[in-house]
Amino acid sequence: MSRILRLNMADQSYRWQEVPPAYAGLGGRAFTSRLLRDEVDPTCHPLSEANKLVVAPGLLTGTPAANTGRISVGGKSPLTGGIKESNSGGLVSQKLARLGIKAIVVEGKPEEADGFYLVKISTDGVEFFPASEYEGIGNYRTMAQLWKRFGRGVGVMSIGPAGEKRLTAASINFTDPHGRPGRAAGRGGLGALMGSKKLKAIVVDDKGTAPSVPLADPEKFKAAARKWAKFIIEHPVTGQALPTFGTAVLINIVNEAGALPTKNFRSGRFEYAEDISGEHMVELIKARGGRTKEGCHPGCLIQCSQTYHDAKGKYLTSGFEYETIWALGANTLIKNLDEIAMIDRLCDDFGLDTIEMGCTLGVLMEGGAIPWGDGPAAIKMVKKVAKNDPWGLIIGNGSVFTGRALGVDRVPAVKGQGLPAYDPRAEKGMGLTYATSPMGGDHTAGYTVATNLVKCGGDGDPLKVLDNPDALQCIVDMINARYGLSLTTGDVGTLGRQVLHDEISFNQDAGFTKAHDRLPAFFKENLKPHNVTWDFTDAEIDQVLEDL
Amino acid sequence: MSRILRLNMADQSYRWQEVPPAYAGLGGRAFTSRLLRDEVDPTCHPLSEANKLVVAPGLLTGTPAANTGRISVGGKSPLTGGIKESNSGGLVSQKLARLGIKAIVVEGKPEEADGFYLVKISTDGVEFFPASEYEGIGNYRTMAQLWKRFGRGVGVMSIGPAGEKRLTAASINFTDPHGRPGRAAGRGGLGALMGSKKLKAIVVDDKGTAPSVPLADPEKFKAAARKWAKFIIEHPVTGQALPTFGTAVLINIVNEAGALPTKNFRSGRFEYAEDISGEHMVELIKARGGRTKEGCHPGCLIQCSQTYHDAKGKYLTSGFEYETIWALGANTLIKNLDEIAMIDRLCDDFGLDTIEMGCTLGVLMEGGAIPWGDGPAAIKMVKKVAKNDPWGLIIGNGSVFTGRALGVDRVPAVKGQGLPAYDPRAEKGMGLTYATSPMGGDHTAGYTVATNLVKCGGDGDPLKVLDNPDALQCIVDMINARYGLSLTTGDVGTLGRQVLHDEISFNQDAGFTKAHDRLPAFFKENLKPHNVTWDFTDAEIDQVLEDL
Repeated sequence: MSRILRLNMADQSYRWQEVPPAYAGLGGRAFTSRLLRDEVDPTCHPLSEANKLVVAPGLLTGTPAANTGRISVGGKSPLTGGIKESNSGGLVSQKLARLGIKAIVVEGKPEEADGFYLVKISTDGVEFFPASEYEGIGNYRTMAQLWKRFGRGVGVMSIGPAGEKRLTAASINFTDPHGRPGRAAGRGGLGALMGSKKLKAIVVDDKGTAPSVPLADPEKFKAAARKWAKFIIEHPVTGQALPTFGTAVLINIVNEAGALPTKNFRSGRFEYAEDISGEHMVELIKARGGRTKEGCHPGCLIQCSQTYHDAKGKYLTSGFEYETIWALGANTLIKNLDEIAMIDRLCDDFGLDTIEMGCTLGVLMEGGAIPWGDGPAAIKMVKKVAKNDPWGLIIGNGSVFTGRALGVDRVPAVKGQGLPAYDPRAEKGMGLTYATSPMGGDHTAGYTVATNLVKCGGDGDPLKVLDNPDALQCIVDMINARYGLSLTTGDVGTLGRQVLHDEISFNQDAGFTKAHDRLPAFFKENLKPHNVTWDFTDAEIDQVLEDL
Repeated sequence: MSRILRLNMADQSYRWQEVPPAYAGLGGRAFTSRLLRDEVDPTCHPLSEANKLVVAPGLLTGTPAANTGRISVGGKSPLTGGIKESNSGGLVSQKLARLGIKAIVVEGKPEEADGFYLVKISTDGVEFFPASEYEGIGNYRTMAQLWKRFGRGVGVMSIGPAGEKRLTAASINFTDPHGRPGRAAGRGGLGALMGSKKLKAIVVDDKGTAPSVPLADPEKFKAAARKWAKFIIEHPVTGQALPTFGTAVLINIVNEAGALPTKNFRSGRFEYAEDISGEHMVELIKARGGRTKEGCHPGCLIQCSQTYHDAKGKYLTSGFEYETIWALGANTLIKNLDEIAMIDRLCDDFGLDTIEMGCTLGVLMEGGAIPWGDGPAAIKMVKKVAKNDPWGLIIGNGSVFTGRALGVDRVPAVKGQGLPAYDPRAEKGMGLTYATSPMGGDHTAGYTVATNLVKCGGDGDPLKVLDNPDALQCIVDMINARYGLSLTTGDVGTLGRQVLHDEISFNQDAGFTKAHDRLPAFFKENLKPHNVTWDFTDAEIDQVLEDL
């Protein structure tokens, strides 16, 4: 049976813990949020020894089911001061599951004068190594060196210079199937939390494990998994749009809807959207010899990732997502996709959240520190994060921090976190998500775009969205067959509500109130081209979480 | 009768408003907090047009009564995000009162591209002037130039480069009787609020006004004022200690009590306290030809201010307070009084809160950016605030901001504001003030030191302090004689509670909870030399405000 691995960074010791019954049915965000609620003082300083970093695969991770290999990372957020879960693709999740690890909990912290450490987990057990040789080194080189040292194909989660410096826009990056750091638990500055623990990287080697975790009812599992795969392949978004153009297929769609935030959320339409569109990206990739279809983890059928080469045909970046391209592009008026790709690459290498950095660059431009649309100036600025330069300390701490440094009051953020790629005035369901999610301004915590904009499953009420109920039943069937349970889709809803309860009560104890469930005042401005505004009353916003 | 002056910075217009009945009995902080509660949305961005800057003399300002010339400045704090009142000496308050001005309310803001403005108030009326010639110029030169332009002796309140840049540790400085900017409404970053209004300075000329505001009962007033003066002169603190050594008389006393926060609140005793004591300061002043006794405003009997010269006998700084000397001295381990005086002077000139800067330098040293006790390095760092240097943008935003830039979790602050000069473990009454004051970590909002440490009026319960009830009666008598009222000391208590109600409810709507009424976790450490700790339970802390 699977166990919890506790790493104590104060003395570089570890212990195995049986999974308590209350945690048995929890995976991913449900696990990380429950553990944080149970074990972390919500009022603690996020970088203090009292905080914990929790890493948890999903409930189906390690099975043969498609698209179940993502990983959740949780902690009290150094960026928002609230609870945080951020998830990622990469190799680590499935390997942890195969090693029978339900979750890793990183606790304590070494003396300030101590160097960084590296932890290796394999069937041989758990080992701590000094990591001074990787200090100050970016994720690209760190991961390459760790593959060289521990074998090609091992899973690595690591931080770059941003996380080492405990900058609160720092991400935790995960090796993709090619050993690159293009996948990240980006949001909420969890890289800074890992940095405060003096943990440079965790290497996960699953050599010697079975290809699948045990299944309680293999036949039922197989049937459900097959049906699940069919859903993915036959759905027009996951079966066609995403594999063809990547998530950047949304650039033209959202721009057409007048919801693509442009020039620090001044307009919903970007004049040069075509230049940064998924369609244009795919053209360039084909002409230059990259790859248009890649999975962020083994067993992904959607393949919305890609390898993007520069004009000379040399590798530039990978995992080049819609949110990233919007944030570093339309939001800053940078229209050259190669410049955007370079910033994305720097973010992956230094370990920085691309959405937060896009918002931050927008605020830098708003404050006049660099000119609007100036890609080379933005690249130069981002490079300072890895140098001994105070500008790096400013922008590496995100959009709200940078706004305060420059005295800018137009900062698109909720609960301290920069907003993602959908203007809340034109995409109101997302606005409600931004306002009310315990995660702060976040697009994954209630993604209404599929329903509101792409019209999957019909035109939905922004307050009540669910794409495909049959697919949900299928996921529940897989969970039941994996663990020998008899959950219903209703149970999943109950679990979801319980997760939100854990998170919201954590935030309340940390000092959050309904006053934090609000968008910045400037969203009262009219948004071009459709002249829409953010017109929900406070009472309407509060209604979102009322029936929990 | 007195009126409210409303300055609208959006179009540089103004209007006079009769004082509404509900405001008639309010002065100083009672006025500023009530107005903010009534007119400012607590959730607004402090630098947005929705915020207001309120400047109000006290109820007795402009009368012949001693020590009634201080001024209150209020606004939603750019530093804490909560309500703020900060007060100061200087020339402005009495002149406003004589001009019949109950308060100035600065509203709106010009376009970002606009330059700064200057407002002149006199018996001739109100005038706006462009202030581009003073932009980027420190308070010393600004005030000197304004005296030259508008006449020696006019009252000036102005911001320096820190306020212009909207840095959230920015102060608003007030001319002292010598035309120097040594007096400041320092705390809470109100200089940034004034900067966001593009208001460089207000000049107040009371030429042509009567020497005293009208008194309803001149004889009764005179009798009470005489008694009041006697209290001040005969009290051992205000009559002897403060006039002789300035407020820095406290350095040796608090150090002896083991409550002088040393090395970023690591110890309660500073090895070199003698070097930075009031006694040593007075020795140096006498040897170098400064002045040991000065009032921060005309009519002050205490005269705890001073002029401090450098080793060559040249003017260096003035208004060299205990809090300043502690913050820039013991807290940073800088033991050279001339270096401390130089930083104080730079803070006055750039318009920076000296307490916040002391806490910030401590955090900078904690994070390794400059060495402990290195005065020249600290001076060099503070100078960057007036330069185009990103370090200036970091430290100019205070201790919590600097802590986040450097990933330092040992930051002595409550509600975002750096703590003053009394370690809360050894001076527990002050600790309760720091924790519960709606102002954030602040020593003026419930000053228990007189009772707990200096033992004025006997040894008091830290939860229940009042120095001299006879003196309070005397103040009430003066207010009654000034306005023709018949208030009791009980009414004053009621008013005080009402002010706290206004402030606490403002903060609640701004998103503050009891979770913000807490000291940083590191105060659980034992404090040398007396091995005391911060051991109040949350329930005990909450009790402070329970009976309001």
